[in-house]
Amino acid sequence: MIIIGEKINGSIPSMAKAIANRDEEWIKKIAKAQADVGADYIDCCASVDVDEVETRHWMIDLIQSVTDTPIAVDSPDARVCIEASKFCKRPGMINSVSGEGDKIEVVFPVIADTKWSVMALLCDDTGIPKTAQDRIRVLDRIMAEAEKYGIAQNRIHIDPLIEMLCTAEDGIAMVREVMSYIKEHYPKVHISGAISNISFNLPYRKIINIAFTVMAMNAGMDSAVMDPLSRDLRGAIYATDALMGEDFMCMEYIGAFREDIFGPQK
Amino acid sequence: MIIIGEKINGSIPSMAKAIANRDEEWIKKIAKAQADVGADYIDCCASVDVDEVETRHWMIDLIQSVTDTPIAVDSPDARVCIEASKFCKRPGMINSVSGEGDKIEVVFPVIADTKWSVMALLCDDTGIPKTAQDRIRVLDRIMAEAEKYGIAQNRIHIDPLIEMLCTAEDGIAMVREVMSYIKEHYPKVHISGAISNISFNLPYRKIINIAFTVMAMNAGMDSAVMDPLSRDLRGAIYATDALMGEDFMCMEYIGAFREDIFGPQK
Repeated sequence: MIIIGEKINGSIPSMAKAIANRDEEWIKKIAKAQADVGADYIDCCASVDVDEVETRHWMIDLIQSVTDTPIAVDSPDARVCIEASKFCKRPGMINSVSGEGDKIEVVFPVIADTKWSVMALLCDDTGIPKTAQDRIRVLDRIMAEAEKYGIAQNRIHIDPLIEMLCTAEDGIAMVREVMSYIKEHYPKVHISGAISNISFNLPYRKIINIAFTVMAMNAGMDSAVMDPLSRDLRGAIYATDALMGEDFMCMEYIGAFREDIFGPQK
Repeated sequence: MIIIGEKINGSIPSMAKAIANRDEEWIKKIAKAQADVGADYIDCCASVDVDEVETRHWMIDLIQSVTDTPIAVDSPDARVCIEASKFCKRPGMINSVSGEGDKIEVVFPVIADTKWSVMALLCDDTGIPKTAQDRIRVLDRIMAEAEKYGIAQNRIHIDPLIEMLCTAEDGIAMVREVMSYIKEHYPKVHISGAISNISFNLPYRKIINIAFTVMAMNAGMDSAVMDPLSRDLRGAIYATDALMGEDFMCMEYIGAFREDIFGPQK
């Protein structure tokens, strides 16, 4: 599982406060904590109205002062992503493009001949499509553009858009259908998503997140925007790999337990 | 999910002690606790060498003094199961038969024209078959016998035999193959198993049990021998039902949370 650590995001109240107060130690601490438990990317989202690029520059420098883990430069504004990406010392991830507006045209040419990855959301100017078919239509368009720019499948993470379960009528059937399609038609693409969206508005969210992750991994998900410090979720991911036959003799599971990535808090 | 509460079993040290000391209050307490959180059957296994039937009689009476929940009469000796079942006030479950010896011949004629259910394990005189094909062979034989005696599919719980993950080479692929076969060929049979076997010899067993249960439910498991007081496991089962689209608006999930079946311990 490719883990995009989600904790440096201005939409989280404690982080919003840290950004507003220019609390450098807090941001460095959260960056290092996520890197220490094996996050593959550190997401960096300011969620502030002014000085979007400048604030990200300051945050990216802080992250890079404590870890070499690549950064996922996160903004709804593709131009901000591209501008902020210039402050990264090593290739990371643009988070995100979608079928909306000119995002693809802004991002794909810039990252074409680089080692940057990109997160692509299956929405477009009509909003979030309600059917699998319509999301697949967005997917196919994004993938056609990626091919045009020579961006390899394995640099692309597709977020089929995980929506809250509490108002779904068929559980996650539709998202699983999209995942199956991706797996079949673009086998090297990473299937991703923001896990915690699934449990919005429900009690005891952690167990919904875990059950969803197990099911989504079985449907092909191999990337996730998540809290890498969620110990039980991390344990469930290692367990699922083992149950799927992808962890010989449970060596990875046992190793991660020994490294205190999951298990009872010591 | 049909839950067969596993806690009254002489192989559990605290229960062995209670049985040896004839600690009636302990056994009644554990019976009631399992019934109170919605167990569908209370398993009753003495695991003592002497007076197997008599000990079970005493235990069954204790269970029946605190709850009307049906009892799963549990012994490796099919004759003990049948003898002990006579003390039950209402139809429960014979736990278990298999392709071994004359178990089927002992049990099926007796329960044929009753409302008793039966747990059938997919092993035989050769032991636990190593391949899906060989387990399916045992299954087909058991089901042919059941048909002969007119035992409806929905009275039969099949345990495909869940073995420890730590020595498996392909995760649970083989068990999932057996489950798929059952689902396809005997759609009304309940697919069951002793969940905690999967995590034997591994650290932090609970997360393996949870991930396994989510995957097994997706493969058709709708019955389990488990601890109904495992709060996170119960939560994961409700969550999985919702994710599978079998819990409209998450009403069951939310209801179970409100009834304190899962969630943070209050």
